[in-house]
Amino acid sequence: MAEQLNIPKGTRDFTPEQVLKREYIFSTLKAIFIKYGFVPIETPSMEQLSTLMGKYGEEGDKLLFKILNSGDFLSEVSDNDLQQKNIPSLAAKICEKGLRYDLTVPFARYVVMHRNEISFPFKRYQIQPVWRADRPQKGRYREFYQCDVDSIGSPSLMNEIELLLIINDAFNALNLKVKVLLNNRKILLGLAERCQMHENFFAFSAIIDKLDKIGLEKVLVELQQIGMSQTNLNDLNDFLSSTMSIKNPLQKLEITAKFIKGEVAEKGIAEMRYILDNIGRLNLAIETEFDFLLARGLNYYTGTILEVKSTEAAMGSICGGGRYDNLTGIFGMPDVSGVGMSFGADRIYDVIEQLQRFPSHLSQSIKLFIANFIPELEIEVLQLAIKLRQNNIPLELFPDSSVKLKKQLNLAHQKQIPWVLIPGDEEIKQGKFTLKNMLRGEQFVITFDEILNYIHTYEN
Amino acid sequence: MAEQLNIPKGTRDFTPEQVLKREYIFSTLKAIFIKYGFVPIETPSMEQLSTLMGKYGEEGDKLLFKILNSGDFLSEVSDNDLQQKNIPSLAAKICEKGLRYDLTVPFARYVVMHRNEISFPFKRYQIQPVWRADRPQKGRYREFYQCDVDSIGSPSLMNEIELLLIINDAFNALNLKVKVLLNNRKILLGLAERCQMHENFFAFSAIIDKLDKIGLEKVLVELQQIGMSQTNLNDLNDFLSSTMSIKNPLQKLEITAKFIKGEVAEKGIAEMRYILDNIGRLNLAIETEFDFLLARGLNYYTGTILEVKSTEAAMGSICGGGRYDNLTGIFGMPDVSGVGMSFGADRIYDVIEQLQRFPSHLSQSIKLFIANFIPELEIEVLQLAIKLRQNNIPLELFPDSSVKLKKQLNLAHQKQIPWVLIPGDEEIKQGKFTLKNMLRGEQFVITFDEILNYIHTYEN
Repeated sequence: MAEQLNIPKGTRDFTPEQVLKREYIFSTLKAIFIKYGFVPIETPSMEQLSTLMGKYGEEGDKLLFKILNSGDFLSEVSDNDLQQKNIPSLAAKICEKGLRYDLTVPFARYVVMHRNEISFPFKRYQIQPVWRADRPQKGRYREFYQCDVDSIGSPSLMNEIELLLIINDAFNALNLKVKVLLNNRKILLGLAERCQMHENFFAFSAIIDKLDKIGLEKVLVELQQIGMSQTNLNDLNDFLSSTMSIKNPLQKLEITAKFIKGEVAEKGIAEMRYILDNIGRLNLAIETEFDFLLARGLNYYTGTILEVKSTEAAMGSICGGGRYDNLTGIFGMPDVSGVGMSFGADRIYDVIEQLQRFPSHLSQSIKLFIANFIPELEIEVLQLAIKLRQNNIPLELFPDSSVKLKKQLNLAHQKQIPWVLIPGDEEIKQGKFTLKNMLRGEQFVITFDEILNYIHTYEN
Repeated sequence: MAEQLNIPKGTRDFTPEQVLKREYIFSTLKAIFIKYGFVPIETPSMEQLSTLMGKYGEEGDKLLFKILNSGDFLSEVSDNDLQQKNIPSLAAKICEKGLRYDLTVPFARYVVMHRNEISFPFKRYQIQPVWRADRPQKGRYREFYQCDVDSIGSPSLMNEIELLLIINDAFNALNLKVKVLLNNRKILLGLAERCQMHENFFAFSAIIDKLDKIGLEKVLVELQQIGMSQTNLNDLNDFLSSTMSIKNPLQKLEITAKFIKGEVAEKGIAEMRYILDNIGRLNLAIETEFDFLLARGLNYYTGTILEVKSTEAAMGSICGGGRYDNLTGIFGMPDVSGVGMSFGADRIYDVIEQLQRFPSHLSQSIKLFIANFIPELEIEVLQLAIKLRQNNIPLELFPDSSVKLKKQLNLAHQKQIPWVLIPGDEEIKQGKFTLKNMLRGEQFVITFDEILNYIHTYEN
């Protein structure tokens, strides 16, 4: 049976070292979220499918993991339903729950259900796994963690600025260099309007978004295919060519302001100007780029949108978010504006691992191994372990006194535990102990109080 | 739409206060697990159903949440299958994954799959949610957390003693009084043998286990119904009546030793004697009780079994575990003995809540609220917030400078944030600030450095 043992495709076991490294990312982000005034919530892994369906587009609906109803799941299904074999309709009848796909829709559902006990603006963080039945590939898993912050109930652009400060602090703390791509959905709308493509906005922005990947020429061909006029194509070509090399975000913004048109676009430009202007004054370590082509897939964004990319490792976006003016509207609570973003912990993990930036102390939380090889001394050794633990030394006491000392030392070595205590018969009587440093190979005969000193002082 | 909004039965949203209280339990347990030399692993929420099915008895199989296969889930299903409407067989064809039911079976699967990279004894802790399609009721949820420790690969009874030390430390740290019920499956077998019920062991132990709930008289009736002879019933009655009042665990053990019979039982008695004897020498705060009727439902236990109960609140077992000699045998890796136990975090939460034992500082992680009511000062106030955060003050900066100060103060009050900073025009110029303590109603005009002092010194 062992041979066929496996875990579901796209999911992972995490070894002790991996868990500790993941916790380092979570606790780093959490500490920053708290510093910025966010409080935690958690929501169930399962939501009603009626809460989830239709919120992530047609493609998203297909990627939801559905949970088979308990008991007689066919009780609501007619013979006719079975004969027709209509997959989505049958799934809807035999499954009423699904695993959450992200933390944003459950957050919106939470806000609506708890509206009477929440004080707005409500600033929450949430660090939990999500599940997507996506085709697994590098950097894409079927179970992965999102670390979200959202501030809901305030239209102030100060919220956007605080998101950028959080990004700055977070990636500083994680020792990663990143750049933030910024845009505003209103500017993108203005661009579509200028190109007379506003009635075909989603197709337009999806093509525009691919510029990085497929190049300007192909973008223009695809835009022509969805009906953009030759004059507009020429104008867009000129505009894109002339702005490509501009690095200063405010300068790029002003040129964009002249090209695009419409009242909504002007509002977008003003919002972006306020953000870029103030961010410029704060001397952040991170690079901020105005990218009027950035679209982001999700439809609920209405203002600022942002994405964070590593400037040191090849990896898709490792954090993204934006402003939404009506997220809770899908659940019947309209006109509550908010901003939020999601850190992709698993991709951040992969980047840190690739760059070998994890702090070295993470892989080992156990400081001491106590050998136990004299059956008559078992209880004395146990009492020694109790005393050391009371002094906050995380330690492993070897349980089988019948096992040879050499084998026990090998085990401590395999487990990479830095210190080994070897309590001999004579020594215990005299209150002395042999303490061995496994990394340096040094060995000391010392008293109990000295054990504590040695372990605390030589820390790694 | 808002009216019908809900979450799946038996699942829960957690508010900020509840999350912080839960994290207090998790981090308390985690710190103790680490101190005892355990290292963390995590496993996927989903396992192959082939890994889970048949491991929790027939009833358990029914309580597994099954995940509908993605895409065309009917592709493996014949028309004949559909017509027959055989629920379990159909479920097996349309679902190949399920949510984990506990952390023990995934742990056994992990050990077998990672056997080549693990050094034994392998001591792991695991804190993750599990899911059961049980009927929800008080203290029973469909999604709940287990906090497990297991030490696998060592037959030494020192492991059992360390479990008891962990229980002692954990409930001391959580400020709860508990008692530990201890038994040994081998003693239970000896009791069955003495009553000539060993061929009907599971039915026998299930009835015996109910003594607390249904009383001695009904237990005897039920045992008679499954075929126990009158002589044996009389003997058992005498034995139970005479031991009921004995509190001293070692004394109770010796009387039991005389009553039961068989080689296996003797081994169980010797194991229990070793544990009780040594635990007695360690002067633990927790009460330890030898309960030869304790059975525990799960079939994989072969030696010591234990359950922990609150002595202050009415609640089922809040922690339980024992020794298993062949847990990984179900996955083709036989003869690896181990011990483990599981803390029921949700029940522990309910007990602490009922007894009002949560530390008072848990409900608030945000120390300071900065009012922001002069539009021209927005950036100065933001820079002040940045400086305070650099000094590790977790704070909420109010984002909308157009909102009246009074409304902002009300909000800080609602959010129970202890300190409010009110930066006025003149004051910022002079480097002075008004700091208000919301709990005491006091107000101070102070410099930046004094802000830090006040907040750190007055902590709660």
